[in-house]
Amino acid sequence: MSHNTFGHLFRVTTWGESHGPALGCVVDGCPPGITFTLEDLQVFLDKRKPGQSRFVTQRREDDIVKVLSGVMLSDDGVTMTTTGTPISMLIENTDQRSKDYGDIARRYRPGHADFAYDLKYGIRDYRGGGRSSARETAARVAAGALARKVIPGVTIRGVLTQIGKHKINRNNWDWAQVDQNPFFCPDAAMVPVWEEYLDGIRKSGSSIGAVIEVVAENVPAGLGAPIYSKLDQDIASLLMSINAVKGVEIGEGFASAELSGEENADQMRMGNDGKPLFLSNHAGGILGGISTGQPIVARFAVKPTSSILTERQSIDADGNNVDVRTKGRHDPCVGIRAAPIGEAMVACAIADHYLRDRGQVGKVRA
Amino acid sequence: MSHNTFGHLFRVTTWGESHGPALGCVVDGCPPGITFTLEDLQVFLDKRKPGQSRFVTQRREDDIVKVLSGVMLSDDGVTMTTTGTPISMLIENTDQRSKDYGDIARRYRPGHADFAYDLKYGIRDYRGGGRSSARETAARVAAGALARKVIPGVTIRGVLTQIGKHKINRNNWDWAQVDQNPFFCPDAAMVPVWEEYLDGIRKSGSSIGAVIEVVAENVPAGLGAPIYSKLDQDIASLLMSINAVKGVEIGEGFASAELSGEENADQMRMGNDGKPLFLSNHAGGILGGISTGQPIVARFAVKPTSSILTERQSIDADGNNVDVRTKGRHDPCVGIRAAPIGEAMVACAIADHYLRDRGQVGKVRA
Amino acid sequence: MSHNTFGHLFRVTTWGESHGPALGCVVDGCPPGITFTLEDLQVFLDKRKPGQSRFVTQRREDDIVKVLSGVMLSDDGVTMTTTGTPISMLIENTDQRSKDYGDIARRYRPGHADFAYDLKYGIRDYRGGGRSSARETAARVAAGALARKVIPGVTIRGVLTQIGKHKINRNNWDWAQVDQNPFFCPDAAMVPVWEEYLDGIRKSGSSIGAVIEVVAENVPAGLGAPIYSKLDQDIASLLMSINAVKGVEIGEGFASAELSGEENADQMRMGNDGKPLFLSNHAGGILGGISTGQPIVARFAVKPTSSILTERQSIDADGNNVDVRTKGRHDPCVGIRAAPIGEAMVACAIADHYLRDRGQVGKVRA
Amino acid sequence: MSHNTFGHLFRVTTWGESHGPALGCVVDGCPPGITFTLEDLQVFLDKRKPGQSRFVTQRREDDIVKVLSGVMLSDDGVTMTTTGTPISMLIENTDQRSKDYGDIARRYRPGHADFAYDLKYGIRDYRGGGRSSARETAARVAAGALARKVIPGVTIRGVLTQIGKHKINRNNWDWAQVDQNPFFCPDAAMVPVWEEYLDGIRKSGSSIGAVIEVVAENVPAGLGAPIYSKLDQDIASLLMSINAVKGVEIGEGFASAELSGEENADQMRMGNDGKPLFLSNHAGGILGGISTGQPIVARFAVKPTSSILTERQSIDADGNNVDVRTKGRHDPCVGIRAAPIGEAMVACAIADHYLRDRGQVGKVRA
Repeated sequence: MSHNTFGHLFRVTTWGESHGPALGCVVDGCPPGITFTLEDLQVFLDKRKPGQSRFVTQRREDDIVKVLSGVMLSDDGVTMTTTGTPISMLIENTDQRSKDYGDIARRYRPGHADFAYDLKYGIRDYRGGGRSSARETAARVAAGALARKVIPGVTIRGVLTQIGKHKINRNNWDWAQVDQNPFFCPDAAMVPVWEEYLDGIRKSGSSIGAVIEVVAENVPAGLGAPIYSKLDQDIASLLMSINAVKGVEIGEGFASAELSGEENADQMRMGNDGKPLFLSNHAGGILGGISTGQPIVARFAVKPTSSILTERQSIDADGNNVDVRTKGRHDPCVGIRAAPIGEAMVACAIADHYLRDRGQVGKVRA
Repeated sequence: MSHNTFGHLFRVTTWGESHGPALGCVVDGCPPGITFTLEDLQVFLDKRKPGQSRFVTQRREDDIVKVLSGVMLSDDGVTMTTTGTPISMLIENTDQRSKDYGDIARRYRPGHADFAYDLKYGIRDYRGGGRSSARETAARVAAGALARKVIPGVTIRGVLTQIGKHKINRNNWDWAQVDQNPFFCPDAAMVPVWEEYLDGIRKSGSSIGAVIEVVAENVPAGLGAPIYSKLDQDIASLLMSINAVKGVEIGEGFASAELSGEENADQMRMGNDGKPLFLSNHAGGILGGISTGQPIVARFAVKPTSSILTERQSIDADGNNVDVRTKGRHDPCVGIRAAPIGEAMVACAIADHYLRDRGQVGKVRA
Repeated sequence: MSHNTFGHLFRVTTWGESHGPALGCVVDGCPPGITFTLEDLQVFLDKRKPGQSRFVTQRREDDIVKVLSGVMLSDDGVTMTTTGTPISMLIENTDQRSKDYGDIARRYRPGHADFAYDLKYGIRDYRGGGRSSARETAARVAAGALARKVIPGVTIRGVLTQIGKHKINRNNWDWAQVDQNPFFCPDAAMVPVWEEYLDGIRKSGSSIGAVIEVVAENVPAGLGAPIYSKLDQDIASLLMSINAVKGVEIGEGFASAELSGEENADQMRMGNDGKPLFLSNHAGGILGGISTGQPIVARFAVKPTSSILTERQSIDADGNNVDVRTKGRHDPCVGIRAAPIGEAMVACAIADHYLRDRGQVGKVRA
Repeated sequence: MSHNTFGHLFRVTTWGESHGPALGCVVDGCPPGITFTLEDLQVFLDKRKPGQSRFVTQRREDDIVKVLSGVMLSDDGVTMTTTGTPISMLIENTDQRSKDYGDIARRYRPGHADFAYDLKYGIRDYRGGGRSSARETAARVAAGALARKVIPGVTIRGVLTQIGKHKINRNNWDWAQVDQNPFFCPDAAMVPVWEEYLDGIRKSGSSIGAVIEVVAENVPAGLGAPIYSKLDQDIASLLMSINAVKGVEIGEGFASAELSGEENADQMRMGNDGKPLFLSNHAGGILGGISTGQPIVARFAVKPTSSILTERQSIDADGNNVDVRTKGRHDPCVGIRAAPIGEAMVACAIADHYLRDRGQVGKVRA
């Protein structure tokens, strides 16, 4: 069975396949009175879209988002105001090459969902991964762009911290660098290393994994819930729903297994401004499932693209042993384009909890 | 706001605080015709309950589970048969020492949810952590015991693989060892190391983190969904909902960031028995959100208990700087008791997806 | 399958059978900072409980409600304050006479759920109707009592307007009469008619249907949603979930089929106080699924109790023709005790929508 | 806030306004392997679409449905097979005359949602009723057409039984008549009466209410749940979500208030074919919330269209008294087009429960 809606009050339903006419989403529960332009959405879609550098798939998609419902257009012809009704967004698929996929219609590509799909559904849209294509994430990014509008003053940014064994030096972290390279990399010194490394990966038709970190600042304190629907739980759930993600961390994550209670607990003092001050942020901005007002820090690991040029052993739908190599256009490191998707997922989780606390009547309440 | 239900068809609602009269859960959606005895539930509660060794909290709770609804008792006076109606289970709190907590009623213990709670709710049951107490997890374990009954033939086992920096040697893995030591440790050689290490932690009033691994075998292939409600997403969500968990992995987890596509993709061959065979299990038994029939492998990191005897800097509800040390009875490594909880969460996630695919009329369908 | 939770933010899960040890509910999502006493709940349970007059079942149940979680008890030992965590409430079954039911264990009572249950579940708790017993509604009433506390200033009252063919004269409507008779009847002149009529029904071992009307006053305007999750839709859904209910109306209900547009549309004028004023209330306080501030008027029809002393034709689980008469203690007009249940359902629906609009942080916002 | 999804496993999300570029829905949870053609959907949309006779609105919409995702097209270019992923359907709005509505942008039409909308959202798409337009129901009908495919062998048909005070004679009921007149009327003798009556209504610019009855045959027994998520509850909820509906009945409905237990309970006998046989169907095919295998009978009342040519008293958004008459193109009896919508809602409710019982792996299970 299929479940394609997430969120409890800020609810997003996505639909669409890689090689159908279009994909999109319906955002239900966006409060009325929020204003935005198409450009406010497009800027995030452009960050995610393919063909931006030689390090990502060369499929060419404009990924132009259309808004079909839920808004009133202002007299300026550009500004839209939400009305509180569901917002349907649509992105057309334009650069499809279905014939690339004919020879894997009945062959199970190792690492892909092909085998599991056939087991489950008995039918599979093999073209470009069908529903499991990373193209689905364009709809998430559109929803995430709206989610940002729901949370007053929030800043949500994602970066790559690791490609293969090459990890950034956190002392070099510079937010200003992130948009200056094709990797969403905050460490300028790492950029040439990754470039050389990925050129090698790309030319050999191989692929490699990555780690992405998303930081959300100016998140109101008090969002979340103590046991279930923890804010970190909902963030983890949405990050894990991204294709190819195999691990999620909040704050110290797995490193916290090696910490003592003294090291791990973030101490507090009253600040000079009379406000509570945390002296560290091992918790990643969430304690007991509830945001503390500190930056929320989430991290996720993306496995290497399973589509590689090297032949791998597999079977086909008829039970024959076969060797499979995956042609077509693919990302050598699908983690690169995952940064804007991770941002979108964190934005949606926060917006959802924001509305649970603040309600949805009239304009968003600061 | 509070959300205390999980699952879509196998739905569990938990309730209760550390120092109230009782805690419990309602399991809604359990199919009719499933037979069990109280002992079938109690065996799992006993694995989780406190006071089992010197390495866990010395609070003494019998954790006897009662079933208040949803079953018909057989003439043998022991066997219960589910009727398809909600199963209410209740566990009384017996060994409460609320006076231990008086001095933290208005002080925020670093690393605990105290500060975030007060911000959110303006009221806080400070006794033993209130709703955030690990006692809540007894209800999860009871639900998990029922969930196992829903999935024919499944085996779900949790172990500790790491305490502090001390990791097991996976070559020593022996399932038979797990019940032979107080750590759910599959590596006999590691047991004395952890004993000595934790004795030191315990005596100094400190605490330490841990990593738990849960393996589910004989899970039917085809459970899950391609994009949202992925089986791994739902497992990650439930594991992250356990108190103190800061990271979750499926299969290779974060290590997959360092793997090439060739290394990561699990190759396949037809087996001698005419059935598909995976040659490795980097995926952890789930591809594209759907179970493959291989063992499902999930891992989660638990931070060190925040309750420590060393004074830490903090503030109180009145905005004063204070120093806090946490008396009372606590686990030096809360990760130890997390193994049966992790098992329960994985069991509930699988049972839920099992029912989504198989439906719920009449007896469970094999 | 079984689904025993309702509400989206004010979520109620009920459990329990007629002849188990207890029944109860978990109210999840009740905002923190709401104060109440057990007596505030008990007063509504007492209105619903059996044995109050000769016109309802003579089963004797004290229906004492216990609160097991989600509150802090004040120093006065009486006042409870909600903490925002789930509130578990429990009511013990004390007056069970299971032996009354032995002879219908395998016989399907006409009009009851017996046949449908066996078809669906293959197992049935035949004692007192099992889960389908009207005793389940005690849990609803407890939840409804809490729901009233969530909505500032609201008044929700239910009355009987019809028993059999005997309808009240709406010109005689006097709220003060409702608590002065055993029928929740607002028309004093109708009381002796119903008394004589029901005495006849009762003595002949027969039963009769009824119509109940629930009026909610001081409901904030703007609750609900335009298309789905309409406030009237959610009220109708909850009223229809009450046992034996076969019809639900809002405002004019079925009578609106006979009205012209001119007659039906409620005209408006600005009132002398500068506030909008409706000149009539055919809509029953809800337009386009959204509350208008006018009193909300809902009505529901309850079929006659199916448990009657006259023999009726039926079959048994073995496929034999049998004649069934239902002994045991029953309500001659189950509609009488449905008035407080209807109130509770309307209260829960309104509280749920109130929280959707206002959110749930801190105390309830007026 | 806005909630535009219904169903638990067969989940439908609708979106769109009267005067936006398009409207549509996403059907999530439709099992894989179901085949259909666009014509299979269009036939139901054509029954609902405007401009079919002089008795409905003269707005001209082709209501051509497009399927954007969730299917594989066969080589015949016509047959689609569901893949188990979400099915996005889109219907363009073509005949919009927004200028008709300029003068009610700030005036509240009595009986419409205008006043409640402004109270709630502070912004309102006044063109053609915006989200509250009956055009939204085209999306429901498309979803309902798919729902029918999910339930093997089911027949679901809706008829009008009453317009104004004119009720059909049930003894004249002839299913063959329903498609022979513009009223979905099963009583041929009533057709000329309604024609003359509605011509009068239409010419005077007035409107009138109606009652629709939906009958579902060959519904599998055992669908539903005992207390909440009763099949009748879910049908009532969806019928009440249709615009202008003010009352819902199952089986005898409100008439059951006047029945004795002897009259109301449907007796049973074993049939000559060895199958259980009901001797009557007062219950409307549902007992204890569970389908019995008898025809399911649901009825709903639709109020008169609030858009009438006669001036009515109202206010505007600035607090002035105004007189409003509604120009534009409207249905004199909106109940006529409600028959196919009611069918769709019943189909969706049954499909949802069917999947809850049967699960969703692979093809639909008979």
